[in-house]
Amino acid sequence: MVDKPLGGAGLRGQSAGSTALCTVGKTGSGLTYRGYDIAELAEKAHFEEVAFLLLKGKLPNQAELDAYISKLKGLRGLPSALKTVLEQIPADAHPMDVMRTGASMLGNLETEQSFDQQSDVADRLLAVLPSIICYWYRFSHDGVRIDTETDDESIGGHFLHMLRDEPASQLHARVMNVSLILYAEHEFNASTFTARVCASTLSDMHSCVTGAIGSLRGPLHGGANEAAMDMIQDWKSAEEAEREILGMLERKEKIMGFGHAIYRESDPRNAIIKQWSEKLAEDVGDNTLYPVSERVEAVMWREKKLFCNADFFHASAYHFMDIPTKLFTPIFVCSRVTGWCAHVFEQRENNRIIRPSADYTGPEHSEWVPIEQRR
Amino acid sequence: MVDKPLGGAGLRGQSAGSTALCTVGKTGSGLTYRGYDIAELAEKAHFEEVAFLLLKGKLPNQAELDAYISKLKGLRGLPSALKTVLEQIPADAHPMDVMRTGASMLGNLETEQSFDQQSDVADRLLAVLPSIICYWYRFSHDGVRIDTETDDESIGGHFLHMLRDEPASQLHARVMNVSLILYAEHEFNASTFTARVCASTLSDMHSCVTGAIGSLRGPLHGGANEAAMDMIQDWKSAEEAEREILGMLERKEKIMGFGHAIYRESDPRNAIIKQWSEKLAEDVGDNTLYPVSERVEAVMWREKKLFCNADFFHASAYHFMDIPTKLFTPIFVCSRVTGWCAHVFEQRENNRIIRPSADYTGPEHSEWVPIEQRR
Repeated sequence: MVDKPLGGAGLRGQSAGSTALCTVGKTGSGLTYRGYDIAELAEKAHFEEVAFLLLKGKLPNQAELDAYISKLKGLRGLPSALKTVLEQIPADAHPMDVMRTGASMLGNLETEQSFDQQSDVADRLLAVLPSIICYWYRFSHDGVRIDTETDDESIGGHFLHMLRDEPASQLHARVMNVSLILYAEHEFNASTFTARVCASTLSDMHSCVTGAIGSLRGPLHGGANEAAMDMIQDWKSAEEAEREILGMLERKEKIMGFGHAIYRESDPRNAIIKQWSEKLAEDVGDNTLYPVSERVEAVMWREKKLFCNADFFHASAYHFMDIPTKLFTPIFVCSRVTGWCAHVFEQRENNRIIRPSADYTGPEHSEWVPIEQRR
Repeated sequence: MVDKPLGGAGLRGQSAGSTALCTVGKTGSGLTYRGYDIAELAEKAHFEEVAFLLLKGKLPNQAELDAYISKLKGLRGLPSALKTVLEQIPADAHPMDVMRTGASMLGNLETEQSFDQQSDVADRLLAVLPSIICYWYRFSHDGVRIDTETDDESIGGHFLHMLRDEPASQLHARVMNVSLILYAEHEFNASTFTARVCASTLSDMHSCVTGAIGSLRGPLHGGANEAAMDMIQDWKSAEEAEREILGMLERKEKIMGFGHAIYRESDPRNAIIKQWSEKLAEDVGDNTLYPVSERVEAVMWREKKLFCNADFFHASAYHFMDIPTKLFTPIFVCSRVTGWCAHVFEQRENNRIIRPSADYTGPEHSEWVPIEQRR
């Protein structure tokens, strides 16, 4: 977690463009979307309101929000060719591969023909990505072809409804709402940067989002909440968790869900999702996973001065809502697609192809040797 | 074509890592793959030999090359689930969307489970991408389900054979070979950089290649040879071409296939493909398209000191081989996948997540206004 010196490696600290969407860690720990504090958004906003803020540039008034929610509700259906594609994907596939393929396939069926369509394409992706993952999941795991066109008001509610065949409780819909807000946008992280590099060639929106999904799939990026869950799920008590963590630290094993490339002291999203994880623990009567999570947090701070990032308490929160661990990162996609698309809009607005240089470390000159003389 | 000052925009001139694969314009115009001059490779090598050089680190001896060609020949088949997916894609889809979706779907069926498999995954992609595009093209356009497992020695010959139901002539196979060599690798161009950003999250190879295809799709990147073809195909004579180009220059229209982000004086690939385009023109008895192309080159140099890049004479060369214009950029994919995969290997070898910064241009602080008070 210690930074290497600034320089070529990872472009850390080097500006790759400008954005009006987000500040990350500007005052050490702050996160804002278009100037609005993340804590205030998570407390007061609908996720759809935040999506509107990111994608259309301002908070909607009531009529605009109603119209937007209604529009998104109308965009949840899957074309039959896309259903056929999803049905070809085996149950043991990586769910992020499913998301990536679903987004890519949609680009064949509903191609962005001109940038004038970008706003509609973004709304469609926002509305339909939950349908893509849940349709595949239910078909491959339960053998059912679900109807993805539910009447749920919220995207989070829609997601849970498809997963369980019944509408989500108010608490669960609320937590999903908060979670989707927390994950919506985070400046030039690797997946968003992937989308911007792609956009800089003036490629289409589906290519940008497909590429971003591929990057978010990486265990150093979007996979952290799943990895955190895999780590904590078998520990039976806070004491066991402490022993195990100390052992992992001694063996210098990587512990997922802690620290951050940009934040130095804390991740502002952690306090928010932690509080909801606690509420869910009470709701389900948990007395293991939440205490385990709290202890891991305490030990990591005591031993390493490492803080939980957004992912760590997401693991327990999602688990308490009975969401299969393998769907954690796809939920991240359903949220971050707002940030990705908003960044693509920005890149297109003031574009130059992103084409850095490289330090050459290979041979200066290689002499051709005829194949019969090669060893 | 004039460079803006160095700085954030497009990361031009900023190092984003190191590579031993390629030098671009090191001495003003040179291009080398692992130190071998591109002109020598295009004259003397098989494309499969160059692929071996890029992916395995050295030129193969005869036994190694024979084994590699034989291995690649054995990897041309499509899984039936992938065929079903390709059959869902309409004839009017963008062929790069097909490539992107095919590569992504393959990742569901043949997932890279560990980086130990990276070399095999790269070989499989190299062998099967031509099958993906030709299977879709022939099914959607001609209504036939082709057998993609041909016995052609070369990847270029395999591609042409699938397209036409008959083995390629020696001349055509030779030109495809040269073309695939010229397009194989080009340092940190936008699609390769996309692959490296994705790889830096430790994501899988299919995600990296899928993302790269999406970036290559952009008209500022891989689309230039198609755009050049669209431009020149209707001109009936060199004189008409000159008039039209002068008009386009006066109207400040963008002319595709000229200039380059890195090369300053010439693109070393141009002289090579131009010579083959001329041979093909003789072969088909052309006395229009080649003279038109030569005149466009002369006028662009005379008027703007802009030189042809690799794409310009590729347009006429492919056209003389009767390749549909919409398949030009997919051929680029079939070649560049070698460079992409080799760069992913390098990124994994010495990785740090690629996460640049951004210049914030948004509001410092936005005050939350309750929705009923918003206008």
